[in-house]
Amino acid sequence: MDDSLRHEYNSLVTRLQEISRLGAVMGLLHWDQEVIMPKGGADSRAKQISALAGIVHEKSTHAEVGKLLDKLGNCDASGFNEIEKTNISEAQWAYNRSVRVPEELVREIAELGSRGHMVWIEARKENRFADFAPMLEKFVGLIKKRSGYIDPDKSPYDVNIENFERGASMAQLDPLFDKLKSQLIPLISAIRDSESQPDSSFFEGEFPIERQEELGRRISEDMGFSFDHGRMDVSVHPFCGGGDSTDVRITTRYRLDSFVESLYAVIHETGHGLYEQGRMPDYRDLPASESLTMGVHESQSLFWERMVAQSKSFCSHYLNLFASVFPEKLNGVSAQKFYEGINVCRPSFIRVEADEVTYPLHVILRYELEKGLFDGSVSVDQLPGLWNDKMEEYLGIRPPTDREGVLQDVHWSSGAFGYFPSYTLGAMYASQFFNAMLKDLPTADSQIADGQFNNIKEWLNNNIHAKGTLYSSDELVRHVTGEPLNQDYFISYLKEKYGKIYKLN
Amino acid sequence: MDDSLRHEYNSLVTRLQEISRLGAVMGLLHWDQEVIMPKGGADSRAKQISALAGIVHEKSTHAEVGKLLDKLGNCDASGFNEIEKTNISEAQWAYNRSVRVPEELVREIAELGSRGHMVWIEARKENRFADFAPMLEKFVGLIKKRSGYIDPDKSPYDVNIENFERGASMAQLDPLFDKLKSQLIPLISAIRDSESQPDSSFFEGEFPIERQEELGRRISEDMGFSFDHGRMDVSVHPFCGGGDSTDVRITTRYRLDSFVESLYAVIHETGHGLYEQGRMPDYRDLPASESLTMGVHESQSLFWERMVAQSKSFCSHYLNLFASVFPEKLNGVSAQKFYEGINVCRPSFIRVEADEVTYPLHVILRYELEKGLFDGSVSVDQLPGLWNDKMEEYLGIRPPTDREGVLQDVHWSSGAFGYFPSYTLGAMYASQFFNAMLKDLPTADSQIADGQFNNIKEWLNNNIHAKGTLYSSDELVRHVTGEPLNQDYFISYLKEKYGKIYKLN
Repeated sequence: MDDSLRHEYNSLVTRLQEISRLGAVMGLLHWDQEVIMPKGGADSRAKQISALAGIVHEKSTHAEVGKLLDKLGNCDASGFNEIEKTNISEAQWAYNRSVRVPEELVREIAELGSRGHMVWIEARKENRFADFAPMLEKFVGLIKKRSGYIDPDKSPYDVNIENFERGASMAQLDPLFDKLKSQLIPLISAIRDSESQPDSSFFEGEFPIERQEELGRRISEDMGFSFDHGRMDVSVHPFCGGGDSTDVRITTRYRLDSFVESLYAVIHETGHGLYEQGRMPDYRDLPASESLTMGVHESQSLFWERMVAQSKSFCSHYLNLFASVFPEKLNGVSAQKFYEGINVCRPSFIRVEADEVTYPLHVILRYELEKGLFDGSVSVDQLPGLWNDKMEEYLGIRPPTDREGVLQDVHWSSGAFGYFPSYTLGAMYASQFFNAMLKDLPTADSQIADGQFNNIKEWLNNNIHAKGTLYSSDELVRHVTGEPLNQDYFISYLKEKYGKIYKLN
Repeated sequence: MDDSLRHEYNSLVTRLQEISRLGAVMGLLHWDQEVIMPKGGADSRAKQISALAGIVHEKSTHAEVGKLLDKLGNCDASGFNEIEKTNISEAQWAYNRSVRVPEELVREIAELGSRGHMVWIEARKENRFADFAPMLEKFVGLIKKRSGYIDPDKSPYDVNIENFERGASMAQLDPLFDKLKSQLIPLISAIRDSESQPDSSFFEGEFPIERQEELGRRISEDMGFSFDHGRMDVSVHPFCGGGDSTDVRITTRYRLDSFVESLYAVIHETGHGLYEQGRMPDYRDLPASESLTMGVHESQSLFWERMVAQSKSFCSHYLNLFASVFPEKLNGVSAQKFYEGINVCRPSFIRVEADEVTYPLHVILRYELEKGLFDGSVSVDQLPGLWNDKMEEYLGIRPPTDREGVLQDVHWSSGAFGYFPSYTLGAMYASQFFNAMLKDLPTADSQIADGQFNNIKEWLNNNIHAKGTLYSSDELVRHVTGEPLNQDYFISYLKEKYGKIYKLN
C-alpha cells in the first residue's frame, strides 16, 4: 500500500478518536445529570450538553473527514486489515447520516425534542393527550423530512429503524412480528385462564435498601462486571452509560417493598455493562470496536436477565443467599416456588413493567402504530383509540387512561420513532444466542446452578462483544448460531417454559 | 452605537459562552476523576481531557475571536456598559495569553507536565530529589521561554505570577513579604517559647465518619452553601470544583482520629463555594462574571475558615453542637479551651498542614526560591539545601528528608511557578476584608456567636462575589476597604490573637 494512503488512514483515525472521546465525555455528562447533578444545575447542563453536541457535530461533519473518506473509499483497500476496513466503512456510514441533514433541520429537531419532552411530561401528568398531539404531529413531519435527506430511496420509517437497528426493515420485521403475535396471543390467553397461578406473595414485604444494594453488587460481580472499570449507582430509571469501555456505569433504583425489581434491573444493566466492558481493547475509540445495534445490545441484557437469571438453575443457586439476606420473607420458600414466582406472567398496561411473554405485544402494538403514522394510514388523533383497541385485542385489557396507554413512553417526545422493535429483536437474539451457547458449552446450565459464570461471559466476550462492528447483525447471528435470525427459538422457549409453569397441557 | 458593532459584540459573546461551557464540562471531568471515577478509567480520562483541552484551545485562539476583538478594541466603546466592556477587555487579555504562545510549546509543556507529575510522585515516594531535578530544570527553561512569548517586556517570573494573580508583581510582593517575615519570625519564636501552651488533646480520639459528614453538611448549610446548586463529597485532597455557579462541588476527606481537619476543610471549601455560587447570575458564562484572582478566591476560603470559624464567637456557638455529636471527647471542654485548641500554632514541615501563623513563611520560602530559579541566582541543585536552611531560619526546624522538604508540593511538577504567593495574598485580603466588614456590620461578631451568617454572606456576595472581574484586585480592595492592600491588618490580627492565646506579654 502506498504511504500516502496509510497517512490518510492515520489522519482519519486521529479525527475519529477525537470524536469518540468527546462522545465519552457526553456519556459522562448524561450519567452525571441522571445520577448526581444538583437540581439547580439543570439549565446550565442543558447548555453544556448543547455546546458539546455542537462540537461533536462540527467534528463529525468536517469537510476534511469527507475528503479523507473519499480518498480511502475509492482506493485499493487490500493493504488494510479487516478492522481498518471496518473503521473506514463505519465512519463513512456515520458521516453520510450526519452530513446529509441540513444543520437547520438538526437544530429544529433538537429544539422540538427538548420542548417536546417538557410538554409530554406535563401531558402525561395531566392525562391530556390532546396537549401532546400537535407536538407529535410536528415531529412526524420533521422526522419524515429528515429521513428524505438521509436516504430518499428508502421508506421514511425504514430509515428510522436503521437509526437503531442497522440492516433491519419492515420487510424483515413484519413476518417475524406477525408470527410472534399469532403465537403469543393464544399463549397469553391460556396462561390467564390457567388454574395454576404461581404464588409470588413472598416478594412483598420490607427489604432494607442497603441489603438490596449489597446483593445487587455481589451478583453483578459474580456475573463478571469489573468495578475497577465501572460503577453502580442509583437513578430514577435504570440505565447503562458512562464513559468508554474502561468506565462503564450502571444504575438501578430501589423500592423498599420489593427487591426483585431492583435486582433484576441490576442484572439487566450488568448485561449491557459486560458488552461495553468486553469491547475489543486494541481499537478503543474507533468505530470497529463499538457495540453493534440496539437490538444486539438488548440481547446482552436480556440474555442475562431472562435466559440466565430467570432460569431454575439460577434461582436454585441464589435462593440460599436471598434467604440469608431476607430471611423473614424467603425462609421456607422452595427453589421451584421461587422460580415460578420470578416468572409470573400477567398482562399489564405499562411496557417497562411487562414480563417476557407479554412484552413483545407491547412492542408490536407500537410498531404497528408507528408504521401507520409514517405511511399515513394512522393519524395522530386516532392514536389513543387505536392503542386501547390493540391492547384489548392482544392482551385482553383496556387502559383506563392515556397515562396508562398512549402517553406512557418517553420515546416519541424526542422524535425517537423506530426504536421499539429493537427491544423484541433483542429478546429473539437472546434466545437464539443462548441456544447456540448451549451447543458450545453443554454444561452451561449446571455452571449457572453452581454460580459459575466465567465461561458464559467469555463465550459472549469472544463471540459477540469483541466482534464490535466487524459484522452486520445479520452476519453476526449467522456466525454465532449458524443461521439467520429465527423467531422460533424465542417462541419455543416461551411456550415450553410457561407451559410447564402454568401447566398448560 | 452602530448596529454592526453590537452585532460583533454578540458574535463574541456566543463564542465566549461556548468556551465557558466547555470549561465547565472540563471542571466536571476533573471533579469526576478525583471523586468517583473507577480507577481503571484513568488512561481514557486523560485522553478525554486532552481532547477537550484541544478544543478549548482551538476555540479560544480562533482567528475569528481575534478579528472580533480587534474591531471591538479599536472602536468607540461608549455604547457598551461596564460589564460589556469588561467582557471585551477580559477576553482580549485571555486571547493574548493563549495566542502568543506557539502550539508546539504549549504541547511540550503539557507533555512535560504529565510526565513530570509521575516522576515527582515517584521521586517523593523514594525521597530522591535528584530524580526530579532534571525535569525541574527543563521546566524552568520552558516556562521562561513561554513567558518571553507572553510578555517579553516583563521579567519571566512576573509573567508567571500573573497567571494566578493578575496585576501582582515582585515589586509589589517583595515589601509585603519582607514586612511579614520580619514580624512573623519573632512572633513564632515567642509562641514556641511561651510557657502557656494550649491543650488540644480533646481533638484526639475516634470520630465516626457519618457524624463528621453530617456536621460538615450542617455547618456548610448554615454558612449559606446551596445544596440545590452544589454537592459535598470525598476526595484525597479537598477542593472546590464542578461545573458553573449553579453546580458547585466541594470535597473534604475524613480521618477517623480527627474531626477538626475535615470540618475546617469543609468550611474552607465552602468559602470558595460561596464565591462561585455568588457570581453575578445575569452574565453567566461570560468573563465579567468570573472569579477574580487566585488570591481573591483564597481570601474567601480563608475569610470563613480563619476569620470566622477560628474566632471565639464561632467556637462558642458551635461547641454545644460539637459536644452533642462527640460527647465522649468534648463534654466539659469550655469554649475558651476549644478556641485555644483550634488555634494551636506549631512550626511543622508540611505547608498544607500549617497553621495560620506559620503558613506565610512556607509561602515566602517558596517565593524566594522561585525568584532565584528565574533570575538565575539559585540553581536547581541548590534547592534542597536552601530549602532546609530557610526552614531553619524562619521556623526553627529542619526537614529530616526532602520528602518533608523540597519534594512536598505538587506545583512544580506541572510547571506552576508563581502560584504560591496567592495563598498569602489571600490571607492578607481576608483580614483586610474582615476588618472592612466589621465597619459595615458592627454586630457581625455577635451574629457569628448566634450562628447567623446571612448578613456576612450577603456582604461578601455584594462586595466581592458579584463584582466578578469588573475591577482589578487592587481596585477591588480599594473599593471594599478604602485603601490598597495593607499587610498590617493581617499582622495585627495574628499578633493580637496569638499574643492573648499564648500570653505573650
